[in-house]
Amino acid sequence: MPAFNDFDGLRALLAAAPGPDTDALAGAEGRNQQLTKPPGALGRLEDIAIWYAGWRRTDRPRISQPQILVFAGNHGVTAQGVSAFPAEVTAQMVLNFEAGGAAINQLAKAAGAQLNVHALDLETPTRDFTKEPAMDQTACIAALLTGWNAVNSATDLLVVGEMGIGNTTSAAALACALFGGEAADWAGRGTGVDDAGYTIKTRVIADGVARHGGQAGLETLACLGGRELAAMAGAIARARVERIPVILDGFICSAAAACLAKDVPSALDHALAGHLSAEGAHARLLQSMGKEPLLSLGMRLGEGSGAALAIQIVKGAIACHSGMATFAEAGVSAG
Amino acid sequence: MPAFNDFDGLRALLAAAPGPDTDALAGAEGRNQQLTKPPGALGRLEDIAIWYAGWRRTDRPRISQPQILVFAGNHGVTAQGVSAFPAEVTAQMVLNFEAGGAAINQLAKAAGAQLNVHALDLETPTRDFTKEPAMDQTACIAALLTGWNAVNSATDLLVVGEMGIGNTTSAAALACALFGGEAADWAGRGTGVDDAGYTIKTRVIADGVARHGGQAGLETLACLGGRELAAMAGAIARARVERIPVILDGFICSAAAACLAKDVPSALDHALAGHLSAEGAHARLLQSMGKEPLLSLGMRLGEGSGAALAIQIVKGAIACHSGMATFAEAGVSAG
Repeated sequence: MPAFNDFDGLRALLAAAPGPDTDALAGAEGRNQQLTKPPGALGRLEDIAIWYAGWRRTDRPRISQPQILVFAGNHGVTAQGVSAFPAEVTAQMVLNFEAGGAAINQLAKAAGAQLNVHALDLETPTRDFTKEPAMDQTACIAALLTGWNAVNSATDLLVVGEMGIGNTTSAAALACALFGGEAADWAGRGTGVDDAGYTIKTRVIADGVARHGGQAGLETLACLGGRELAAMAGAIARARVERIPVILDGFICSAAAACLAKDVPSALDHALAGHLSAEGAHARLLQSMGKEPLLSLGMRLGEGSGAALAIQIVKGAIACHSGMATFAEAGVSAG
Repeated sequence: MPAFNDFDGLRALLAAAPGPDTDALAGAEGRNQQLTKPPGALGRLEDIAIWYAGWRRTDRPRISQPQILVFAGNHGVTAQGVSAFPAEVTAQMVLNFEAGGAAINQLAKAAGAQLNVHALDLETPTRDFTKEPAMDQTACIAALLTGWNAVNSATDLLVVGEMGIGNTTSAAALACALFGGEAADWAGRGTGVDDAGYTIKTRVIADGVARHGGQAGLETLACLGGRELAAMAGAIARARVERIPVILDGFICSAAAACLAKDVPSALDHALAGHLSAEGAHARLLQSMGKEPLLSLGMRLGEGSGAALAIQIVKGAIACHSGMATFAEAGVSAG
């Protein structure tokens, strides 16, 4: 039996999901104050460690099983010429992931993370959202469940990424529908579309939002999203229910995640923004979501690559928090 | 026989040091254009990989032996009350490093880096630079050589860090003497000095610069620096001569490094800024040095901690560059 059969079922699971453990939070705060460093000297690493401790329900957590999920999907709107790359690249890149040749393979290995790739019906692109909903509820639920079921419940840190030619168009349409503004505020260059393609892309986004705007988050995801975006949302939702901390990747991942928070505001409390993408509107999107990125390295690749790199920051934070001596243990004067 | 006997000897070594290999740079640029990603999509990771390849003289480098050096020293100016912590904390923290209890121990382990700690005459603080030079040339050369000799010539990525109560005062005085401005432009809160201590600190910096300003970089380092700052400069210089890439840590490390570039402008071509410290004037210092930080996480601990975390970014960049498949290898359409 699936975890949920419709959007309301998923919303109910998210609304009932437990928050961080307050005892673990308090214990981690107390421990942090005793560690051999000036107060606050590890900056955001301290906040990350305490936050992580709350979700993992222990004041001295470890990270031993990070998981990276990459979902791939194809988009009907690519027929309109919104991308610099042809749609067949999605399937070619899935083969590259499977052969170990992509950036995410190298970054997963460096982070000691399990990497799983899920291709979602690549031979059947979603529908062109300027003409009809990209997915009906049944198709969207199937993709959400693919993501939900892909999460290893033993993992202690989750990254979700994507591959899908045309999906910055989809993500921009979602962001515009969820947060308002003009299509041009959310359209970016994606993998490097030229001026003519950018003009088409902006019009496609505007048409999609005009047709499908004003709905709840999951309904918006179905109408303007894609299978890989829905799968990412499903995986993030599963992690929320299981209290597994998540690192969000770039623009597309953030847009998918935002659909959950539109319906259940606490749905992303377990999620950090891994990095600020070079995709133009990502800064605006993260600001709209109330998330501050950990890294800002001008990356715009997707595949979960920025978040995979940010695993190392979170691991560093936890290593310090759980591994350092206290002032008393080390015999250091506390100032 | 030591590598150099005086400041002019060190300057001559730096001036004669070879730059990056142009064939390796060109080879790495060419390889980067063939990797399975849109052009530029890995952002700064691409620049880092090409830069690193040039210094390591191969278009497909690996990082297998990072080294972190932490130098500790004590400062005569602490007697004036410039720090929130008592001077004995320097020696206590050295014991903590040796016992594996400090932040840098955890971050070194996470980065797979060799960690070596060198305490420099802790029982004999440098002189109070408001009254006389902190070190004479002989003492400064000895500290420079400690750093120079501490570098493992087989290492392929070097981080230098420090521990020394009072050394943000020393670093601020160096920065003010090298780059101008007022003492208040460079004074920060260090480990957390209060308002009264901050007022003293600013005056101490101004007095030191008034007494010792206007000299060359290494002479300034001797007059206003400390043994751990000179040792960091010596290690960075050795790495420059050996073409070992360096990741600079925070405010104190940057100030020590800047003394080299004052005398030989190319002395820091092999160095990246690992992070932007929360110590107030670090942004101004990095800007004066023409360096853009990799991370900005509000850290201000020293010990090499920010740079140690940045090792992971550089490792990620090299892992992608050297491990990814090309478009041809993977059978992916290049757009």
